[in-house]
Amino acid sequence: MRYEDAGVSIERANALVEWLKGTVGGGIGSFATRVRVPGGSILLSTDGVGTKILLALEYYGLTGKEEVMENLGQDLVAMVSNDILADGGRTLHFLDYYATGRLDGRVASVLLSGVIKACRKVGARLVGGETAELPGMLPEGVFDVAGFGVGVPLKRRFPAVRPGDALVAFPSSGFHSNGYSLIRKIISSRGLDITRPYRETGSRRPLGDLLLRPTRLYARIGREMFLKFGAKRGAHITGGGIPENLPRALSGREARIFWDRIRTPRFMRFILEVGEVPEEEARRVFNMGVGFVFVVPKRRLKAVLRRFKEAYVIGEVV
Amino acid sequence: MRYEDAGVSIERANALVEWLKGTVGGGIGSFATRVRVPGGSILLSTDGVGTKILLALEYYGLTGKEEVMENLGQDLVAMVSNDILADGGRTLHFLDYYATGRLDGRVASVLLSGVIKACRKVGARLVGGETAELPGMLPEGVFDVAGFGVGVPLKRRFPAVRPGDALVAFPSSGFHSNGYSLIRKIISSRGLDITRPYRETGSRRPLGDLLLRPTRLYARIGREMFLKFGAKRGAHITGGGIPENLPRALSGREARIFWDRIRTPRFMRFILEVGEVPEEEARRVFNMGVGFVFVVPKRRLKAVLRRFKEAYVIGEVV
Repeated sequence: MRYEDAGVSIERANALVEWLKGTVGGGIGSFATRVRVPGGSILLSTDGVGTKILLALEYYGLTGKEEVMENLGQDLVAMVSNDILADGGRTLHFLDYYATGRLDGRVASVLLSGVIKACRKVGARLVGGETAELPGMLPEGVFDVAGFGVGVPLKRRFPAVRPGDALVAFPSSGFHSNGYSLIRKIISSRGLDITRPYRETGSRRPLGDLLLRPTRLYARIGREMFLKFGAKRGAHITGGGIPENLPRALSGREARIFWDRIRTPRFMRFILEVGEVPEEEARRVFNMGVGFVFVVPKRRLKAVLRRFKEAYVIGEVV
Repeated sequence: MRYEDAGVSIERANALVEWLKGTVGGGIGSFATRVRVPGGSILLSTDGVGTKILLALEYYGLTGKEEVMENLGQDLVAMVSNDILADGGRTLHFLDYYATGRLDGRVASVLLSGVIKACRKVGARLVGGETAELPGMLPEGVFDVAGFGVGVPLKRRFPAVRPGDALVAFPSSGFHSNGYSLIRKIISSRGLDITRPYRETGSRRPLGDLLLRPTRLYARIGREMFLKFGAKRGAHITGGGIPENLPRALSGREARIFWDRIRTPRFMRFILEVGEVPEEEARRVFNMGVGFVFVVPKRRLKAVLRRFKEAYVIGEVV
């Protein structure tokens, strides 16, 4: 099964991005956008959570687990603040856009609680937002969210990326917030029951719990990596996977990826195998277990790996 | 007919806003949010276009008029930049979030062209965004958009609002981007044909053309009002109408509104009459023909009215 089979076309999206690049120029294509305001520069980013919301709504409906909705709030903050981090910034301010067919105050407030908590974890504040009740546009029980973050650079200058720099991976908490249209397609077409555990995942938790883990927030790790360990750049691995996201951190240089070293959690492997997703397609859609990559100067590598036991090398700049 | 009949509840929305105010504190409830960044302060705002999109999609489907989609782009920029203006700022940077059931590159690029043009008109730039293809969340042909703006204050300090200050109205271009769920309900329940002109509107243009006029951009007017004519505050009249939006510009003071002076365009009156919308309900949902209000010191009033022929007084601070 491929992403296209689930109704999502990377080609269509890329064509629009190419048109935009030609029309408005720079900025489009990086993780966040750096712009000048009087007094300095700020980093801006916007993102959503995608159809992970639909899976969450289904699971919430089946189990009543409130944390599922709260976790989506973290997903939203993570998608935005990890992008700002990738471009060397910390997120200070956050706004949300919440659209729904019919406003369910309970669901909305639980989700926003998750946004507020996640903001606190990355050192940001929810400072505004918009709630839109749009009958006929979204189904009654369905909502969509977008987040908007404003950050500031952690440092004035970041060292240039050079051949020999190591690519240090930090594990994801799972699929994060990408590829869920394909995951949902696999679940429905293969008749998986997300309320029960599957032995093949290596976990006793229901499949839904594993699939709906919130996206990790890398802000604290990133702060240390950039300020103490001389990290040069970051790559937030989202839609497009490592092949499309890592190059954005390489300033035009090439990288060699050691694909066989990449540690993909068993429940992710299980979904990919059940869905018979070709390996090359999986790598273009999912993070494969790598949520964030830092470009690290070789001489700092040992110190990094000593400090962060979970970190490991997945490639090098050539 | 009332807003609630169209599936939109101002009460539900207000309850959520009240909860948010209690949870995150200040900022929520003004037009834009003013926050500090190193070097100064910036103004942030987010908004959408609502179900005007559904009316536009229908009309575009019926007539093929591309400008309809481009105008929605202006609506989006206007909703955000007028809010920033109301709090005394000019918009510098803009990001969009575009969600759709299936990406139609042509529709998306025409809409984004409208965003880019409108940004130019207010002195801002589209610097980033997100396009999300969300099958199953939104119907195939439907999309939703949200906009995020970053502005800076036009001046360091704005004079305090005082009794005797005049409330100067600038005409809207129509319903702007609010109340379209009710408008659509009126159209469908009364069997109006938006592709034809109605004599009662006083216009020879099809009803759809009048209903889909883009929201006015008040940035240029506002710049002059704040910098040359000593305007103290602004109110962008959106959802909630004059009764809910004007108080946000009064710093806790009360105002007397001369409702009989308000000039409501004939096509707006036509919709309200056909829909049998109670006057008090109409005032809470629609702008009634007033898109923006400035609080102006009495001694500058004559000069303002001489400079802007379309401006007129609708009330005073008491």
